[in-house]
Amino acid sequence: MTYTAAVSGATGYAGGEVLRLLAGHPEIEVTTLAAGASAGSSFGALAPHLPRYAHLTVQETTPEVLSGHDIVFLALPHGASARVAAALPEETVVVDAGADHRLEDPADWARFYGTEHAGHWPYGLPELLTGPGTGEAKAPRQRETLRTARRIAVPGCYPTAVQLALAPGLAAGVVQPQDLVVVAASGTSGAGKSAKPHLLGSEVMGSMSPYGVGGIHRHVPEIRQGLSRAAGAEVSLSFTPTLAPMPRGILATATARLSPGVGPAAVRAAWEAAYAEEPFVHLLPEGLWPATQNVQGANSAQLQLAVDEAAGRVVVVCAIDNLVKGTAGGAIQSVNLALGLPETTGLPQEGLAP
Amino acid sequence: MTYTAAVSGATGYAGGEVLRLLAGHPEIEVTTLAAGASAGSSFGALAPHLPRYAHLTVQETTPEVLSGHDIVFLALPHGASARVAAALPEETVVVDAGADHRLEDPADWARFYGTEHAGHWPYGLPELLTGPGTGEAKAPRQRETLRTARRIAVPGCYPTAVQLALAPGLAAGVVQPQDLVVVAASGTSGAGKSAKPHLLGSEVMGSMSPYGVGGIHRHVPEIRQGLSRAAGAEVSLSFTPTLAPMPRGILATATARLSPGVGPAAVRAAWEAAYAEEPFVHLLPEGLWPATQNVQGANSAQLQLAVDEAAGRVVVVCAIDNLVKGTAGGAIQSVNLALGLPETTGLPQEGLAP
Amino acid sequence: MTYTAAVSGATGYAGGEVLRLLAGHPEIEVTTLAAGASAGSSFGALAPHLPRYAHLTVQETTPEVLSGHDIVFLALPHGASARVAAALPEETVVVDAGADHRLEDPADWARFYGTEHAGHWPYGLPELLTGPGTGEAKAPRQRETLRTARRIAVPGCYPTAVQLALAPGLAAGVVQPQDLVVVAASGTSGAGKSAKPHLLGSEVMGSMSPYGVGGIHRHVPEIRQGLSRAAGAEVSLSFTPTLAPMPRGILATATARLSPGVGPAAVRAAWEAAYAEEPFVHLLPEGLWPATQNVQGANSAQLQLAVDEAAGRVVVVCAIDNLVKGTAGGAIQSVNLALGLPETTGLPQEGLAP
Amino acid sequence: MTYTAAVSGATGYAGGEVLRLLAGHPEIEVTTLAAGASAGSSFGALAPHLPRYAHLTVQETTPEVLSGHDIVFLALPHGASARVAAALPEETVVVDAGADHRLEDPADWARFYGTEHAGHWPYGLPELLTGPGTGEAKAPRQRETLRTARRIAVPGCYPTAVQLALAPGLAAGVVQPQDLVVVAASGTSGAGKSAKPHLLGSEVMGSMSPYGVGGIHRHVPEIRQGLSRAAGAEVSLSFTPTLAPMPRGILATATARLSPGVGPAAVRAAWEAAYAEEPFVHLLPEGLWPATQNVQGANSAQLQLAVDEAAGRVVVVCAIDNLVKGTAGGAIQSVNLALGLPETTGLPQEGLAP
Repeated sequence: MTYTAAVSGATGYAGGEVLRLLAGHPEIEVTTLAAGASAGSSFGALAPHLPRYAHLTVQETTPEVLSGHDIVFLALPHGASARVAAALPEETVVVDAGADHRLEDPADWARFYGTEHAGHWPYGLPELLTGPGTGEAKAPRQRETLRTARRIAVPGCYPTAVQLALAPGLAAGVVQPQDLVVVAASGTSGAGKSAKPHLLGSEVMGSMSPYGVGGIHRHVPEIRQGLSRAAGAEVSLSFTPTLAPMPRGILATATARLSPGVGPAAVRAAWEAAYAEEPFVHLLPEGLWPATQNVQGANSAQLQLAVDEAAGRVVVVCAIDNLVKGTAGGAIQSVNLALGLPETTGLPQEGLAP
Repeated sequence: MTYTAAVSGATGYAGGEVLRLLAGHPEIEVTTLAAGASAGSSFGALAPHLPRYAHLTVQETTPEVLSGHDIVFLALPHGASARVAAALPEETVVVDAGADHRLEDPADWARFYGTEHAGHWPYGLPELLTGPGTGEAKAPRQRETLRTARRIAVPGCYPTAVQLALAPGLAAGVVQPQDLVVVAASGTSGAGKSAKPHLLGSEVMGSMSPYGVGGIHRHVPEIRQGLSRAAGAEVSLSFTPTLAPMPRGILATATARLSPGVGPAAVRAAWEAAYAEEPFVHLLPEGLWPATQNVQGANSAQLQLAVDEAAGRVVVVCAIDNLVKGTAGGAIQSVNLALGLPETTGLPQEGLAP
Repeated sequence: MTYTAAVSGATGYAGGEVLRLLAGHPEIEVTTLAAGASAGSSFGALAPHLPRYAHLTVQETTPEVLSGHDIVFLALPHGASARVAAALPEETVVVDAGADHRLEDPADWARFYGTEHAGHWPYGLPELLTGPGTGEAKAPRQRETLRTARRIAVPGCYPTAVQLALAPGLAAGVVQPQDLVVVAASGTSGAGKSAKPHLLGSEVMGSMSPYGVGGIHRHVPEIRQGLSRAAGAEVSLSFTPTLAPMPRGILATATARLSPGVGPAAVRAAWEAAYAEEPFVHLLPEGLWPATQNVQGANSAQLQLAVDEAAGRVVVVCAIDNLVKGTAGGAIQSVNLALGLPETTGLPQEGLAP
Repeated sequence: MTYTAAVSGATGYAGGEVLRLLAGHPEIEVTTLAAGASAGSSFGALAPHLPRYAHLTVQETTPEVLSGHDIVFLALPHGASARVAAALPEETVVVDAGADHRLEDPADWARFYGTEHAGHWPYGLPELLTGPGTGEAKAPRQRETLRTARRIAVPGCYPTAVQLALAPGLAAGVVQPQDLVVVAASGTSGAGKSAKPHLLGSEVMGSMSPYGVGGIHRHVPEIRQGLSRAAGAEVSLSFTPTLAPMPRGILATATARLSPGVGPAAVRAAWEAAYAEEPFVHLLPEGLWPATQNVQGANSAQLQLAVDEAAGRVVVVCAIDNLVKGTAGGAIQSVNLALGLPETTGLPQEGLAP
């Protein structure tokens, strides 16, 4: 192993997934685990699915504990990262899996989080198109900003799926930026590990329900930010998240109005061109549709689309694992870029199915 | 018991649910079960969840077997009902849980089913508004046509949820008929009981996936038909169904563009007025959102809505049990009307939760 | 309705299920809901699956609130029922869904609960054989003690399934009382509605795990008590409960050593004789095995058995819904007996399947 | 990569899992996929969760197709392996994931499978103790026979869990070989990918049910064979498998009578000694119990035990992933031994949780 890493928030779902994936990473070794309430406990009893780390003792999340590593993963509650990061050396690669550094507009932050804005860091979605254009005139990918980054803001899980779904068509101009409509289903791990009554197994098994309806979910400004940049114009967006009876996975159904005069072939070509060379984002062969099971545990995104000419809309469906491509895997992919490693290092592409 | 009933397709999910519900109906007694391949078998071994009918022998689906009952429930494959119904007396209440008699436009039928149109019957969604208007000028409900019906077309499960979700706003004019966008999640029983690989438990548990994307699902013309009537104008609709890891339930997320100058209070008032007197359709108190578990096994629909002014859309979420309000319960509700019984007779309103 | 009822603990799973079932009971009307922390709240927001009770306000659990009803259902934490019951009139039918009054032996209570024993009440499992013997010499059922009871101890969910599974063979002497071995799987609602991390949907979906292993589960003395009486001899029992990824249902796999010289026909005859006349307990036709789905929402128990001569054991499998036959349904069945109503009044026998 | 492999039965669950795991194996490269009905198809459309193999065309399962590889994995229906293996060179490592070569006793084979016995191959459960004894006198592990094997019989999934659970105590003599009682829950993938009605998602979600009760399951003789060898005496066994509502995982609850005079410390010591050095089999710290989620996707087994002195039994619970340690992972572990590679090469130990 070449690099050492500390993982803070190690007992949560995001932190645990970083650990699971790094167990298969040949160049990074986790040497420190930190957390909040469980500091001082043996990690073995807290995470029996991760025997490799069973011998470690969980430490407190302090700058002293976290410094001295090449990489620090922060999986903390909102508002906690900035202070910790400020105390770490500039050359440390600090990865924030929380929301603190995703939004560029302080007004967005204030409206959706209600606290002071911590500023924004390079956004860890390497495949994202950063502006309109196609072919030779295509804008660069987000990955370019990550190659030299020492601070990385990991995207939210829904924003990962929705931006991957819609950016190609917006950048190519085959769909319109106004009136995007997205409905997404998420597994329960997206809601975290703190025990809330509505997240009990008895409540969620066999049941679907929405939440954060009407434009109030905190991922709305993040999605708008990325898609507006890809479109080169302000997008408008209706976004409805729903809770699905499964532990993992996001299935985002994203629709956009077809641009005038654009036919199915041009639509498909936009997405094909966007992802033909991407190792983790797969536009499936026509006729096959994504299923979250196919990307379970993998850093992959599966997409498929259909043009509904009667409705005047393109429907794009994207499946990811919210904890992998949607959080921990995307974080490690960005770290690979920042460290100059091959981008796919240590990241599984095979889904755990069935 | 006053009335006798025969249930054809008794071994399928829809037929079984008719039987489960009729076990609690004080005025209807099932005296005949019919099916296809299992004719001649004892029902006890075929449906161990329905001990009340265990002593019956399944008979063939023939006019001879089905005639002589006050009510005949047909839960048959597409295309099979018309011929059977034609051989039954006119005064028999014949209820078709299949699609054959739902669509009014033969061209719709031809395009989505590819066979000859069997004609259309009174549509069994009593709460549906049949035209635009509010207050004194409000159009009648669909239930009026059912009071004298002797042939009833049971709505599809998705159309039940989607029409209940959107008709009030369209009829009141607070949302626009153009560019409706609906994404709905269904439990697997909606796909029936025939063994297909993609419906295996191993494939569906822990997984979400879409199907019939791009306006090709057979429920699209049915939804358009009802909503266009409610709106008094042709609607356009993007509809995406998804398969959810649960046996039952539909959660439909339906969005429509806000009409110019309409505010949240007027929007809410439209839905409140539509359902204030309805025993089975509940607009929840603000802040509570539907969950399919809450209507599991019940003939209820739960709705909630939000106005997203930034997106310019109203989002309405509707939860039903696809086999109850979406099929067997709605059928019995319509039969109650046709027989002059109180509409709620024998129909549970309590969901099996957790 | 002839009788009025109060339900205390109305916001928990057991209390909610009492309410769901009483909604279909023609002779009992619930007029009062009581609970702990949510006293003062509208029930509509607390239990959106029970619209019939939405208009009621939750009251505090006090003798004043509960008195004045014909029936009082107590679904309270362990240790809380005795005090409440003592303050209620003797002629009130008080039903304790908790454990307080199940055990006859104060030493059992002390060892497994660690508090003072509140005494024992008539045990609400009507079908239970109360002693050894067959045919003419058969001991009476537990139901006889319930016909005049005004205090009823509702059995635990596991004890219901296990005693129904094993009592017939023990009473008939075809299996031996020594070395009973039972492994049972329960849905998560058996663990209640309080939010504990290991009961989160993310933790339980897709996972099976045991708990209370090694004879320490509180249902062990209760099972031993009933089976020892049925056998006319002290039984010994290994009991292992497991948590299954489903909201409801218990599947108990109960095995007992075959008595010397007993063949398969005599074994089957013992169970057939025990349950031939029972409306809620069904020994399935040979070749069919119980599934919890088949009794979901129903007050039924399904049983099947096999004789494994090589192993020298009889294996009996019993499926119930832990919240219905295992709690609320069994409670109402016992109340029906106490009130002199037909035992099956208001209790569904049809399972919600699929 | 040093070695080439062909996988026959690549479109089934076992074959797919071999492929998923080999994608992470640094020394083995899969160059050929073979199957039955889907021969000639592109693998990409058949297994969208395995993009690494999407470019391969599925070939027929013939000796010509399979020869020329260092390793051949056979995941074929019962009775098909022997003929194929006979046509492959002796030096090829042939791994049979089916049952054909597991049983040593032709009479067992005849009674449980009804066809001609194909003979037996070295049994691929490296950790299995092959005889009684402890400390210096401990019998060798099964892994010794695998180091030179060129034909390997992969154990059944239940036998893997049950033998790992009980062998240590039997070999050490702390439990008795008579009257073992095991109840095990399996995820649905254990039943394979062919579409059968009782395996539909609608049937299995939310439901538990037993099957193969009474000593008739085909894994019974395999479990008896291994445990009798470990015990040095013929064991007797009651084994009940149950189907659980989850795609993967086995939770085996295995109980055995405590030997006279043996106390809890000696019991625990037997299992500790057996697995202290094993990389894949973990006796958890006291107080922690296995959960199938903790080993999902991993080649690990988790165990915990309790002594129930009142019942006179030891209860051992073992969790594995039926497709990994129970099939494909165990197969690769055995291949690693046969090739002289480190036994853990390419095999994940981290479970996919939540």
